[in-house]
Amino acid sequence: MKQITNYIIKNSLKRIFLYRSCLGRLKTMGVERVFSYTLANETGVTPDQVRKDFSEFGIRGNKRGGYEINDLLEKMEKIFHRNKDHNIVLIGMGNLGLALSKYNKFVQRNMNIVATFDIDPFKHKMRSGIPVYPMNRLKEIIDRFRVKVAVLAVPEISAQEVCDELIRLGIKGIVNFAPVIPKVPPDVVVNNVNLCDELESVIYYVHKLDRVEGLKNIKLLYKDMKY
Amino acid sequence: MKQITNYIIKNSLKRIFLYRSCLGRLKTMGVERVFSYTLANETGVTPDQVRKDFSEFGIRGNKRGGYEINDLLEKMEKIFHRNKDHNIVLIGMGNLGLALSKYNKFVQRNMNIVATFDIDPFKHKMRSGIPVYPMNRLKEIIDRFRVKVAVLAVPEISAQEVCDELIRLGIKGIVNFAPVIPKVPPDVVVNNVNLCDELESVIYYVHKLDRVEGLKNIKLLYKDMKY
Repeated sequence: MKQITNYIIKNSLKRIFLYRSCLGRLKTMGVERVFSYTLANETGVTPDQVRKDFSEFGIRGNKRGGYEINDLLEKMEKIFHRNKDHNIVLIGMGNLGLALSKYNKFVQRNMNIVATFDIDPFKHKMRSGIPVYPMNRLKEIIDRFRVKVAVLAVPEISAQEVCDELIRLGIKGIVNFAPVIPKVPPDVVVNNVNLCDELESVIYYVHKLDRVEGLKNIKLLYKDMKY
Repeated sequence: MKQITNYIIKNSLKRIFLYRSCLGRLKTMGVERVFSYTLANETGVTPDQVRKDFSEFGIRGNKRGGYEINDLLEKMEKIFHRNKDHNIVLIGMGNLGLALSKYNKFVQRNMNIVATFDIDPFKHKMRSGIPVYPMNRLKEIIDRFRVKVAVLAVPEISAQEVCDELIRLGIKGIVNFAPVIPKVPPDVVVNNVNLCDELESVIYYVHKLDRVEGLKNIKLLYKDMKY
């Protein structure tokens, strides 16, 4: 059964990413403990929200003593399964695929692009760090590296077909950069990242801010738009 | 006054993007009218949600006759100010910046990257479609093309500095691909797109789905994760 699933990253999960980024910065500054209000202040959310989010993800702290930063970061690593390596395949070695294959932040977070794939034989000769294979080697690589997650950077027109093939071969999660929303079975997670939408939404908010006059309205708008 | 703003794209806005993509597909198939339940079925949301979202964005329809697709698409174009051109600058011509500068979907949606910038003199000699300038020409270009929106693809370490400079020169909206959350004044919109977070969130949901057993729980999980 194929259907539209349209997962989106929950806002609480986005805020956990935000807290983590903030905690990392505080740690490098030599800070050892934080209170929820410190973290709230640094991230622009309310202390209540911080505690609520922590509770949702099973993170408990001592209200009086605050949270130990190392402990928080360790718990977050567990939430994101960063204590183990994640092997990933990338399909489509156009401009965006190439850039993603060279993005060194993935490795720093234990996400390894083990292989990339493209239908263009010319690209199989590319000498970058990560091999570029023809599509008929997909099964072999997915099996060998026990890959569960794929990054899709193929053109719009072939996105659904490649999705179907990936799922047939056992892929359970897809980050899709093609500007189309693929239909997938209910046990597969797709995160659609549409670069045009990201840019258009900023244009939308810039125009909206432009129309808003007076601090009170700006505050209302904020409430509407913030994490 | 600088502060953390952390705008995120509202889910209702994300759904509008989703409806638009779906309407475009239906239009190419020769369909002329839709009902909210058709659109709901095609996008995986409830008909009530479709009507609620339309109402939030000031889109009205005839309950009995449904919506005319051309009319809906026209209204959505107005919401996103697509009836006029938007000039954009792109800062940072590393792998990701280069890929974004070549991304042809932006132009199709009236978003024109008029110039790119990099501190590396070698890159100023690059012969792609869009010129690559040194940073000291930023003011001239922003003024000449009345640029209000910038795409930031610089390294983490220089993101805040470049943000400050852009805002000083009149930029009001930034799509930030650097994995850091810049502090900006309250009248500036920043949309942080963190590629690691997008990938990690899929890994998170794949593990979560893996632990869920039984259709009932899958349905509950869905409710939690869907648009």
